[in-house]
Amino acid sequence: MPVVDVHTHIYPPTYVELLRSRKTVPYVRTFPDAPDSSRLIILPGEDDPATPSTSRGRPIGPEYYDIAQKIAFMDLHKIDKSVISLANPWLDFLPSEEAGEAARRINDDVDELCAKYPGRLYAFGTLPLSAPVEIVVKEIERLKTLKHMRGVILGTSGLGNGLDDAALDPIYAALEKHQHLIFLHPHYGLPASVYGPRASEYGHVLPLAMGFPLETTIAVSRMLLSGVWDRFTKLNVLLAHSGGTLPFLAGRLESCIMHDGHLKKHGKTENRRDLWDILKTNIYLDAVVYSELGLKAAVNASGADRLLFGTDHPFFPPLEEEAKEWHSVTTNYGAISAAFKNDDAAAQDVLGNNAVRILKLD
Amino acid sequence: MPVVDVHTHIYPPTYVELLRSRKTVPYVRTFPDAPDSSRLIILPGEDDPATPSTSRGRPIGPEYYDIAQKIAFMDLHKIDKSVISLANPWLDFLPSEEAGEAARRINDDVDELCAKYPGRLYAFGTLPLSAPVEIVVKEIERLKTLKHMRGVILGTSGLGNGLDDAALDPIYAALEKHQHLIFLHPHYGLPASVYGPRASEYGHVLPLAMGFPLETTIAVSRMLLSGVWDRFTKLNVLLAHSGGTLPFLAGRLESCIMHDGHLKKHGKTENRRDLWDILKTNIYLDAVVYSELGLKAAVNASGADRLLFGTDHPFFPPLEEEAKEWHSVTTNYGAISAAFKNDDAAAQDVLGNNAVRILKLD
Repeated sequence: MPVVDVHTHIYPPTYVELLRSRKTVPYVRTFPDAPDSSRLIILPGEDDPATPSTSRGRPIGPEYYDIAQKIAFMDLHKIDKSVISLANPWLDFLPSEEAGEAARRINDDVDELCAKYPGRLYAFGTLPLSAPVEIVVKEIERLKTLKHMRGVILGTSGLGNGLDDAALDPIYAALEKHQHLIFLHPHYGLPASVYGPRASEYGHVLPLAMGFPLETTIAVSRMLLSGVWDRFTKLNVLLAHSGGTLPFLAGRLESCIMHDGHLKKHGKTENRRDLWDILKTNIYLDAVVYSELGLKAAVNASGADRLLFGTDHPFFPPLEEEAKEWHSVTTNYGAISAAFKNDDAAAQDVLGNNAVRILKLD
Repeated sequence: MPVVDVHTHIYPPTYVELLRSRKTVPYVRTFPDAPDSSRLIILPGEDDPATPSTSRGRPIGPEYYDIAQKIAFMDLHKIDKSVISLANPWLDFLPSEEAGEAARRINDDVDELCAKYPGRLYAFGTLPLSAPVEIVVKEIERLKTLKHMRGVILGTSGLGNGLDDAALDPIYAALEKHQHLIFLHPHYGLPASVYGPRASEYGHVLPLAMGFPLETTIAVSRMLLSGVWDRFTKLNVLLAHSGGTLPFLAGRLESCIMHDGHLKKHGKTENRRDLWDILKTNIYLDAVVYSELGLKAAVNASGADRLLFGTDHPFFPPLEEEAKEWHSVTTNYGAISAAFKNDDAAAQDVLGNNAVRILKLD
């Protein structure tokens, strides 16, 4: 029975180099008072000096870019295979003319990293979304020629106007045609104003615990409302963090659609695929939800055959110097054990069998 | 076995009069092309002419202000008792010097409405939050003298800086001392930018399905992080819409707290009451979640003894002219039946026994 981690990030050397060359978010830098400690600053507005508790981002060490450390982490946590993906914010920030070449180099880099550990590493590719659409489509086609690629990771901004933008249709069509799974992942969070004047006292908690999952949920809701899955009925999406909070809000979202006068007037409450159908047909959820309660809700939304174990490595390392195993990982392992305490087969599906089947791993 | 609706709103005549006298959100008005149809426009920015699909708000008829219609709705849906509350945005918008008197008048009005139907109606009072804190505290004390009052309804803005504002402490202290339950309800949603450029095509769906529950969840997270329940260990809060999405995100929120370097450095990851404890001690959830999945998650978060049936009347009426029963109500009834199909006693607790016990109804 393999254990497969589908939510685990890498910053390949090409990408770290790119971030080190920059002076604005996202970037990697050192500070004069700690010249040996590189800091990764990626979230929108994160380097605002008015929020000193978080303005230096987070330490970045070899666990971010050294693939041997990924393997060591996998060994420590008994993970057999990982499907690695470039971390946010991917290439969203690149000028149009640089994006295509950067994506090719990064995808080649990541594929080569996977080749170093046969049978243990696979990857989701990165798209050059700021480039012209035909360049994006070409990279989608080229990914099929890279041995370890099993889909693409995608943020929520699309071409800049979100995932309900009709201009994405050629990209969705190409992803559907080539049967690339989209791993949908948040980055932009919510406007800082929603966290109020005391937010900086709370460290990174609110942007990560609230902003990330809510961003994902809104993005998927917009895809639903714009009819993406009515037009692309075989487009498959793996949602980070068990869907943000899509399982819990699915009922309210469907109810609000069915009770909306404007949608009704335009015939948009009928002749559409509803969210419950899409959850069981087009959507997969990772199992990165940190509670038995959340995991059960995810199972109820999509089924145990569509839920996939993940860790979010290298984020959320233990803060205790002496810790070996990562609490963030053991919490998610524990949630799976608790939710499936009477169903070993379902637990094994979530831990690895689903990923092997869905992503066609060896 | 009584059925009790704890989430049901009223616009008493005093309040409708106030809204009719205004020319900016929130207000009630008619349009020249439909002089007989009053429209209620309450959401922030809702009257923006750039979003014609929603800029006229919603029709407001006697179901909003005529208490006999509330009773007829209760009879139709076999609801024995209702705990009515002023709907959003309450008195948040009033100038400081007008708020105290307005709250007294509205609370008296609502208490008199309850008196018309002995044993069937109770209420959550309204606080004059824009008034000086001592006026607010005085109204909290006065509410104890009104026979039908069983707590207060509260939005998320507090005194303007959110519910994690230390300036609210005298108000929390008074609510705790007088054992007033807070019914915490959203209104402000999220900044419109998060819904993207196509939002107006989707009617009210995104602000209502996403903005409302996410606002509640962020508000409670901020209360948790600021230590409200560490200081006021007996402060009880009933969360609208089953907590927004607090049950689903509780695990992630706790994990983000425990992994936050800033909080750790300041000793704030320890010696605090965690969210799971507070969910089972201080928090009650209504059962307005429109799915079996969501209801089960709410039960797992707080227990079936802390979950209370609600309808959100007069919002979400059926759009079909011929409909009698409201789908929004039958959906929530159905979710309770499905979630407790093997536990009639728990279903009866959620439908009414919990409310009778917690709110000391006759």
